Amino acid sequence: MSGGPLEGVRVIDLTSVVVGPVATQFLADYGADVIKIEPPEGDLLRKLGGKSPSGDASAKFLHFNRNKRSIILDLKTQEARRTLQVLCAEADVVVLNMRGPALERAGLTDELLRAANPRLIHCWLAGFGQGGRYADRPAYDTIVQGASGVAGAMERLVGQPSYAPVLAADHTVGLIAIQMILLALYRRERTGQGDSIQVPMFENMAAFMLAEHMYLRSFEPSLGGTGDPRILDPQNRPLPTLDGHICISANTDAQAYAFFEAVGRPELKDDPRFSTVAGRFKNVQAFFEFRLGALRERTTAQWLSIFENANVPAMPYHTLETLLEDPHIDDVGMLTTVEHPSEGTIWNVGLPNKLGSGARTDYMPPPMRGQHTTEVLTEAGFDAATIERLKASLA
Amino acid sequence: MSGGPLEGVRVIDLTSVVVGPVATQFLADYGADVIKIEPPEGDLLRKLGGKSPSGDASAKFLHFNRNKRSIILDLKTQEARRTLQVLCAEADVVVLNMRGPALERAGLTDELLRAANPRLIHCWLAGFGQGGRYADRPAYDTIVQGASGVAGAMERLVGQPSYAPVLAADHTVGLIAIQMILLALYRRERTGQGDSIQVPMFENMAAFMLAEHMYLRSFEPSLGGTGDPRILDPQNRPLPTLDGHICISANTDAQAYAFFEAVGRPELKDDPRFSTVAGRFKNVQAFFEFRLGALRERTTAQWLSIFENANVPAMPYHTLETLLEDPHIDDVGMLTTVEHPSEGTIWNVGLPNKLGSGARTDYMPPPMRGQHTTEVLTEAGFDAATIERLKASLA
Repeated sequence: MSGGPLEGVRVIDLTSVVVGPVATQFLADYGADVIKIEPPEGDLLRKLGGKSPSGDASAKFLHFNRNKRSIILDLKTQEARRTLQVLCAEADVVVLNMRGPALERAGLTDELLRAANPRLIHCWLAGFGQGGRYADRPAYDTIVQGASGVAGAMERLVGQPSYAPVLAADHTVGLIAIQMILLALYRRERTGQGDSIQVPMFENMAAFMLAEHMYLRSFEPSLGGTGDPRILDPQNRPLPTLDGHICISANTDAQAYAFFEAVGRPELKDDPRFSTVAGRFKNVQAFFEFRLGALRERTTAQWLSIFENANVPAMPYHTLETLLEDPHIDDVGMLTTVEHPSEGTIWNVGLPNKLGSGARTDYMPPPMRGQHTTEVLTEAGFDAATIERLKASLA
Repeated sequence: MSGGPLEGVRVIDLTSVVVGPVATQFLADYGADVIKIEPPEGDLLRKLGGKSPSGDASAKFLHFNRNKRSIILDLKTQEARRTLQVLCAEADVVVLNMRGPALERAGLTDELLRAANPRLIHCWLAGFGQGGRYADRPAYDTIVQGASGVAGAMERLVGQPSYAPVLAADHTVGLIAIQMILLALYRRERTGQGDSIQVPMFENMAAFMLAEHMYLRSFEPSLGGTGDPRILDPQNRPLPTLDGHICISANTDAQAYAFFEAVGRPELKDDPRFSTVAGRFKNVQAFFEFRLGALRERTTAQWLSIFENANVPAMPYHTLETLLEDPHIDDVGMLTTVEHPSEGTIWNVGLPNKLGSGARTDYMPPPMRGQHTTEVLTEAGFDAATIERLKASLA
């Protein structure tokens, strides 16, 4: 038994790369039994995420697939599709991220699967919502970033259309899919009924970006253009010090006044450009420009100590490399080594959140491709001959 | 009655700005009764998000606070604190984002509130986890971005430490908090017990960034440095066409080969640098550089049509302005106008996801500051004299 609030919840995971695996990773970490269905060649992310000792388990694959079991099914064969339907008939949740026509062809629509299993929660991660003209288009992270305004916001900041330096669409929409699945599980506890969920990546990222940057066009008639100038100002960045960079935030009047005092410019508290939240917003460029030049004569450590005493929120800036050496990360034991059957010793990133009642209590390393095919199919009642036949069809 | 799966769930929302309101927005949209507690001066985001007709309801405030009721309590007074404890004693969920010492001073720790109400789910959004040395530090979006590697990933992309052009930490951690609350609600349905949740912003964003970019340091001994080179390559961006930009994705062999064919360079399918997923990863700079120059001689519309026929995933690039005119956004009815009591006509961004069983069926515009103080306190059983006294103390 896994432990955790989702113990006993069986998830059939027909997703690959990032958006789906992010969602099922959370379910697995909190105790669900996640059965990852891989095609014969394996999840694309096994290679798309870079090299690994085995060549078949990139770092990114490892970070998004622990606590799952992997079985291989070649859904091009009739027998594999029938096998999958048997698994779905006994499951609580099925998560898919194929396109609509492929869903139909494989017999994996919510109508079909829920007819056989009315308690099933069917969660479909689509590129685009089914009510619109892009419904059947393929989607990948970059395409959604480019279409939804993520790359558009980057352009305002850096001067040319650019993708964010993370899988912003995949990773964020994966987090959102978790909410929808948990919402349906909660409702099922109260009503006994399954549910059908559609999570379109494009609409989710468009909503994410519009909440941030629809800005003055949120009013009708509009009060101005899109784009929160405070967030999109290139001067809104970690501030250079004598020996590096520091991150500060001085949003309230009290914080801003303390900042002006700390940097030796107390008179700015009375400057009408900077004396109120609305004033600093209106004069955000001048405010940010001033901040950018104000800290160059002391070291980061000196400023941190000054700002701590002055009650100005501040933190050191981390590169991706120095983040790994952060002492707080070490204090909370976030990074631990675990043994992986094919990759040797790997680093596991611990769960950032604490749930008083506890998370999953066991730990399973990210699976090798098809590691659990026999185990899972035997549990599901298939006989040895059928399992051998399914495995032989993969060769 | 609101409708939606969270109908009947009462949430006391002691959060402000973005991280907390993102979380409670989702709960409200799916039917929870969210009581937003504001200080006398109101949520900072009312002004920090820019101008508005009333001066007290910025666009960003509006996008993160619909379907909530607002009451004002000055928690510096003893009577307001007692009032709040009464509200928490009858609630299902309380969400807070103050620092630890402030939580203690206000009598809002999980121990205290759950002693009075054992079914309560206490969700504390902290800047930093309580087991580490930064535990009591203040956190804002930029500080967390800077400390957790978001700004570090931006530096790799743009050459200097920079924040992302969205509230990456606030907005993402708000989404994650929703998961934790729903997980606890689900468990409560099965066990009858409340729960205590800690959601530290820093650890969540560090985990987010490490999953993306711990990369070759995920292996022990490490196989190389941090930072997924495919994602951090500045050439990985929307591709220039004759009249604009287009977003394409060609990750699988089939997509990459189709791309080479479509742009008239079929021989690259046999180039060992580009003929496999692993090859294109290893030679990602050359691959991206080639893509960047390959589309300059036709228009975006021409390429879209070519790529559609060739089965190469592609989408037009949107700026923040053109996103609002996207025809699919229009098809799905994502943007609608609603009337707001103090701001006039405003644009509401509809829910991107579809839940078969339905979301909330009514709609309440984002509240004016303290709009529901009398209503909520009357429902909670306070008499008119007490309510008048509480309101008078605000003047």
